[in-house]
Amino acid sequence: MSRRGHGKVTVLAGGVGAARLLRGLAPLVPRGQLTIVVNTADDDVFYGLHVSPDIDTVLYTLAGLSDPVRGWGLAGDTFHGLEALRRYEHDAWFQLGDRDVATHLFRTRLLRDGIPLSQVTALQARGLGVGARVLPMSDDAVRTIVETTGGRRSFQEYLVRDRARETVRSLTYAGSRGAQPAPGVLAAIEEASLIVIAPSNPLVSIAPILAVPGLRQGLRRAEAPVVAVSPLIGGRPVKGPADKMMRALGVAPTPSGLADFYHDVLDAMVIDTADRAHLAKLEGRGVAATCLDTLMRSLGRSTAVARAALALGATVREQRNLAS
Amino acid sequence: MSRRGHGKVTVLAGGVGAARLLRGLAPLVPRGQLTIVVNTADDDVFYGLHVSPDIDTVLYTLAGLSDPVRGWGLAGDTFHGLEALRRYEHDAWFQLGDRDVATHLFRTRLLRDGIPLSQVTALQARGLGVGARVLPMSDDAVRTIVETTGGRRSFQEYLVRDRARETVRSLTYAGSRGAQPAPGVLAAIEEASLIVIAPSNPLVSIAPILAVPGLRQGLRRAEAPVVAVSPLIGGRPVKGPADKMMRALGVAPTPSGLADFYHDVLDAMVIDTADRAHLAKLEGRGVAATCLDTLMRSLGRSTAVARAALALGATVREQRNLAS
Repeated sequence: MSRRGHGKVTVLAGGVGAARLLRGLAPLVPRGQLTIVVNTADDDVFYGLHVSPDIDTVLYTLAGLSDPVRGWGLAGDTFHGLEALRRYEHDAWFQLGDRDVATHLFRTRLLRDGIPLSQVTALQARGLGVGARVLPMSDDAVRTIVETTGGRRSFQEYLVRDRARETVRSLTYAGSRGAQPAPGVLAAIEEASLIVIAPSNPLVSIAPILAVPGLRQGLRRAEAPVVAVSPLIGGRPVKGPADKMMRALGVAPTPSGLADFYHDVLDAMVIDTADRAHLAKLEGRGVAATCLDTLMRSLGRSTAVARAALALGATVREQRNLAS
Repeated sequence: MSRRGHGKVTVLAGGVGAARLLRGLAPLVPRGQLTIVVNTADDDVFYGLHVSPDIDTVLYTLAGLSDPVRGWGLAGDTFHGLEALRRYEHDAWFQLGDRDVATHLFRTRLLRDGIPLSQVTALQARGLGVGARVLPMSDDAVRTIVETTGGRRSFQEYLVRDRARETVRSLTYAGSRGAQPAPGVLAAIEEASLIVIAPSNPLVSIAPILAVPGLRQGLRRAEAPVVAVSPLIGGRPVKGPADKMMRALGVAPTPSGLADFYHDVLDAMVIDTADRAHLAKLEGRGVAATCLDTLMRSLGRSTAVARAALALGATVREQRNLAS
């Protein structure tokens, strides 16, 4: 396949890892062909504001406004409001930048007025000048609940407040059973020529998306190859507690473990050179694989990883065409 | 009267004019003796946030945090959030600083949780280190509705968005009939040794307070002298559209017009030297009066005006004692 004409691309995305891939991928896919289905199970209410961390990270990244160091929020943002809030709330532990607050204010008000999250997100994408279509996985509330050795936590409590120090016993995606995919999500999966699972935490970013009724079936039925980009490099994630969580929940923090986890939907995987020993194992179980340096520390590296995912998808498609 | 021992002082207050007086008055009244009953009929919801402009101006002033130039908001505040919000809402006309937003976020959340405004305000006063007791006139919603030649406006629409350019036809204090004074308001009037009507717009800052059932009667019955500080200097307010509004509604923008407006509750008035011609008229109708330079352009001038109000109150009390 040439680099052109890969058709519609749909990405299942969490936060930072997905954003690193997307900044490389978005420029390679023609405007209007890229849909990003974003995890919302990390959403939470802070200071009365509805915060959608993964949607914001994706939007800010695609708008070229994300903070390159922190991995969340807006570049150059200030924290005057948070500092002032601590006069009233001494234990205000969730950080919100002043510019970032505007995103949450707008979202909170519209949601309260009954406008679904998918529409709010579309308005925000337009306001930020984002060309790609960004869809929440669902307009219904799905929340990751983390049962740890210390008790029940919301995901942000576990990750941000408690810094992921507690051992995870189980995860539930509360509300997922009754949730519906947001408008456009199933069609984006059905009509895609390539589906990419971003290098996000499989347990708390991708699994909640797959837990929305219809999503997993849609992926299984999809004509497009499903290519995962591994978030692991030599058994560790670039950021966050994915490896600890995977181990605690019986998922090996390796490409093979990941392939097990995604077994029923996965066709191919992009892995890091550090994990090249897994290439044969993956191929042995029918998962096409390619390896390269996946640490996306620059736009150039993001572009290279995105190209590898597109190329791997094209290869799988070609092989299918030959076989049929 | 000595400057000490004037007992409890209760101030009826609007925004900027009241704040100018209060920065002079607060240091003259021992901690715990000063209660400020604040107009809340200017309150409004912006971007989903409950904004109480007069409460904030009073709190910020007493905390020494108010912006000395703008007359509203916090000194040195930034407006990054508002600027960011305009990406989503192009016509965001109500200005909120980043630090200021924290006040509204806290208030909005607590009100939504069912905590009354008076308790929220007490928590905010404590957070800001304000020693005086700041009470909203009511925990119930009272809203000034401005009927102008152009249509019906909220007060902030009339004042801020439309810059008070439209001619006012009538004012209503919607909700006032069913409102109750906030806890502590009537007691603060009853127990006061001096009641001061701050140099605020009589029609939109003081009248809504007087419109809360029980307030006006409380002032009439109060033992303490009621001393108004005129907001007018030579027929014009220092800031805002008070004169235009007064004229439009048939109230002369003079100390005499003000005395008419407050007729049933007023005992005395502090007026500006520019209006000294009104001294005799006021005395002639039984309103004790004193004049000095009331333009409070410095803390020193605020202190002088506050002292004049305290002294005038003491004089009225002494005369009453002599008469009885």
